[in-house]
Amino acid sequence: MIETERKFLVTSEDFKKQATEQKVFRQAYLNTDPQRTVRVRLTGDTGYLTIKGKSSNSGMSRYEWEKAIPAAEAEELLKICEPGMIEKTRFLVPVAGHTFEVDEFFGAHTGLIIAEIELKTEDEDFERPQWLGKEVTGDLRYYNSQLIKKPIKNQQDE
Amino acid sequence: MIETERKFLVTSEDFKKQATEQKVFRQAYLNTDPQRTVRVRLTGDTGYLTIKGKSSNSGMSRYEWEKAIPAAEAEELLKICEPGMIEKTRFLVPVAGHTFEVDEFFGAHTGLIIAEIELKTEDEDFERPQWLGKEVTGDLRYYNSQLIKKPIKNQQDE
Repeated sequence: MIETERKFLVTSEDFKKQATEQKVFRQAYLNTDPQRTVRVRLTGDTGYLTIKGKSSNSGMSRYEWEKAIPAAEAEELLKICEPGMIEKTRFLVPVAGHTFEVDEFFGAHTGLIIAEIELKTEDEDFERPQWLGKEVTGDLRYYNSQLIKKPIKNQQDE
Repeated sequence: MIETERKFLVTSEDFKKQATEQKVFRQAYLNTDPQRTVRVRLTGDTGYLTIKGKSSNSGMSRYEWEKAIPAAEAEELLKICEPGMIEKTRFLVPVAGHTFEVDEFFGAHTGLIIAEIELKTEDEDFERPQWLGKEVTGDLRYYNSQLIKKPIKNQQDE
């Protein structure tokens, strides 16, 4: 199905006060080509295999296919992924009827915090909380599949 | 799980007399890197997503993960695969307690027929029918993921 999302840098940790849920994600890629990324993700006792096509011209919309898989299978698949692992905590932050997914990265990407909001259409409006910074929708450097190859810090970009 | 297989060229169509089943396969790849191939296959009303790691030194054994997926999802995924599609008829041919999977290729690969046999261990013995030709186990040129990039005909190799 086609997913429509916008992506922003996050300028403070204030979002944590509004978060209703948080989970640690470990993920790596079986393909990092932006035309057809294949991601293996492990969170708690569930794995996910996610395949995404290339982004629309706006960078907001992208074909996405996802299946939950047993954690043990995700562990096996992580072993054959391209080098590089992303580890991050994902916070769910409800804001005025939408839910931001805010990712705080660890390791090589420490300092980077990215918020994503899923929309029904590319022109759907939404409320912007104070901690929401510069929009980076469609900026390849902030694709997790590209971060694996080239770390980037929030600060460097401000 | 680890799959152990040996692969052979096929020298005649006599195997068809012994075949108990045949199906047409269409398949393409989300990654053709032999270290981590990601294959989308469609046969009849079922799709499959298959991920394979790199081969053992003998070329016989390889980590393999496979899930059946709805045909409609396989159709969608085929659209974002790397260019090139393999179309072949797979025949199941029982021979003395083993089953050969014999693939007759169409299109760019017409003339190529490859038989595979799955074994429990690398040194397991099996009966070789008359139509079984040269062994090509571990020969990258005969990986379906590589055929997509460079067609090869049976005859050229004999």
